[in-house]
Amino acid sequence: MRVPVDELKKTTLQAILNSGYDAAEAETILDVLMYAQLRGNNQGIIKLTGAGMPKSPAAGEIRIARETKLSARVDGAQNQGMVVLTRATGMALEKAKAHDFGIVGTFNTCTSTGAIGYYASRIAREGFIGLIFAGSTTYVSMYGSYEPLFGTNPLAIGIPSAEKPIVFDMATSAMAWYGILEAKLAGKTLPEGIAFDRDGNPTTDPAAALEGAIRPFGGYKGAALSLIVEVLTGPLVGAAFTGLGDDHKTNWGCLVMAINPELLVERETFLSDVARLTERVKSAKALPGVDEILIPGERGDRILEAVLQSGSIEVEDNLWSALQEVAARA
Amino acid sequence: MRVPVDELKKTTLQAILNSGYDAAEAETILDVLMYAQLRGNNQGIIKLTGAGMPKSPAAGEIRIARETKLSARVDGAQNQGMVVLTRATGMALEKAKAHDFGIVGTFNTCTSTGAIGYYASRIAREGFIGLIFAGSTTYVSMYGSYEPLFGTNPLAIGIPSAEKPIVFDMATSAMAWYGILEAKLAGKTLPEGIAFDRDGNPTTDPAAALEGAIRPFGGYKGAALSLIVEVLTGPLVGAAFTGLGDDHKTNWGCLVMAINPELLVERETFLSDVARLTERVKSAKALPGVDEILIPGERGDRILEAVLQSGSIEVEDNLWSALQEVAARA
Repeated sequence: MRVPVDELKKTTLQAILNSGYDAAEAETILDVLMYAQLRGNNQGIIKLTGAGMPKSPAAGEIRIARETKLSARVDGAQNQGMVVLTRATGMALEKAKAHDFGIVGTFNTCTSTGAIGYYASRIAREGFIGLIFAGSTTYVSMYGSYEPLFGTNPLAIGIPSAEKPIVFDMATSAMAWYGILEAKLAGKTLPEGIAFDRDGNPTTDPAAALEGAIRPFGGYKGAALSLIVEVLTGPLVGAAFTGLGDDHKTNWGCLVMAINPELLVERETFLSDVARLTERVKSAKALPGVDEILIPGERGDRILEAVLQSGSIEVEDNLWSALQEVAARA
Repeated sequence: MRVPVDELKKTTLQAILNSGYDAAEAETILDVLMYAQLRGNNQGIIKLTGAGMPKSPAAGEIRIARETKLSARVDGAQNQGMVVLTRATGMALEKAKAHDFGIVGTFNTCTSTGAIGYYASRIAREGFIGLIFAGSTTYVSMYGSYEPLFGTNPLAIGIPSAEKPIVFDMATSAMAWYGILEAKLAGKTLPEGIAFDRDGNPTTDPAAALEGAIRPFGGYKGAALSLIVEVLTGPLVGAAFTGLGDDHKTNWGCLVMAINPELLVERETFLSDVARLTERVKSAKALPGVDEILIPGERGDRILEAVLQSGSIEVEDNLWSALQEVAARA
């Protein structure tokens, strides 16, 4: 059904508050969820439904476990992933503003960080190159295997520009975990080549895939990228990783980097050159049937613009009722 | 034919010297080419044959165009790409040793940098996380287009470990340019889905592909990664890039980063955790027909070990005669 944006935001905020978060946490989480939902990304309000994302009773004070001028390692203390990664992104930006480079890792969270393009976009909008890597528990198999070992291990890259920033956000799996969940809820089958069942047979059944493994995207190259993200969000930040043992379910990690382009070139030249590059790419000769060549981030921006212009957004009936239910809880 | 490794090295060195390089440059180039050739990578001695890689008469003194504690921008002054990137890698390592992070860009070269896993491997062997991005002239199309806009834009990542480092090196194109050239020289066709001819028709003919465009790997995600590499090796380092104009043929760029893992965690813990992770991945349940799950870099290491053990290497007859010819020139 068609839902007014204001109503969607209000209902989502209430659902977050009903999940146990304080007002400041709720604003942060709302911002991340709306970034996804209003851009047609599958990491939006669905996260609040079903088992949802109740605040962990174990959540303590977020603290800095290690810090240098250029870096920090943040103990998430079982707080919500979006809250912790927002904090880490802010720290990486501060360090980059002061010293041209900031790298901040997080550990000891075990909940989704949402669409990580959100954080990359924030860094890019402040004029820095942003790199985000996010770990999670095991869903994805290595190339040649059908055993779930890696998280969907997304990476996001934000590039500032004199025009709109480039914001690229991708799972290194053939499909995001929430995409599989969405297919299951909608009663749809998966495309071929996305997943294995628990015995290693190829499957298009999302329920079987959730019990089996998702493939990495792009064959061996995608699998290798997934392994690299596993290193950057596991061993490098002192979070769990495949092979470490049981705490893979409760101790996920993330890594944020912010790089000042002025380390290498003049800021204004860089920004205008990026804009020139994207313009050239957009003007490339298109294949038959292709209306427009899209820069990373642009598809979502288009959806967002249309939503904001109309003031309302299409939300699947079941999803909207499920969200309303959470928002109506006492 | 089977060629003794010593003879291969001697002949290659002579071919490099005959291409106009001094002794120090020749040792550097030999090292990079042998890294590829002895690992079964298609960026080895083939580069010396055909048009080869004569030293540019325009080559001047390599100079530092911009420098900070953490960064440098190196003017390659039309020197050979391997020589310039070796210098840049050394600088990034020095900065990372002194300040935990080093980022060095290069511009004003227009020749191949060879298998960039070489540089990532060097950084990893020194205990740092290495990231290498390499630009080149236009061969690869954006997703949705058939017009060559990007270089094959490889990226390489080196991760130190208590065991062997992880060294991942991939073109963001569906096939490396030298892979297409190799297929053409061997009279082979390309797999489906790799390339377009100049009119945008899918082609399996390597000659038509060289006049048309190579596709990015992995659909939209690979194309987006290729665009990101174009930014990092163009606008960010002040080298040419698609959309800048004519000097795309003579002014390629590269970017090197070296990151000290101690910015975030204890060195020994990091190294042993990476080893633990790779061991776990190698022990994953394999799909039918898969003998062994390989970590990035391992396939090449296996080939190298076998070559070193036997003391000789299989080289295609035509390639060997072509190399000998260059080495025999007065």
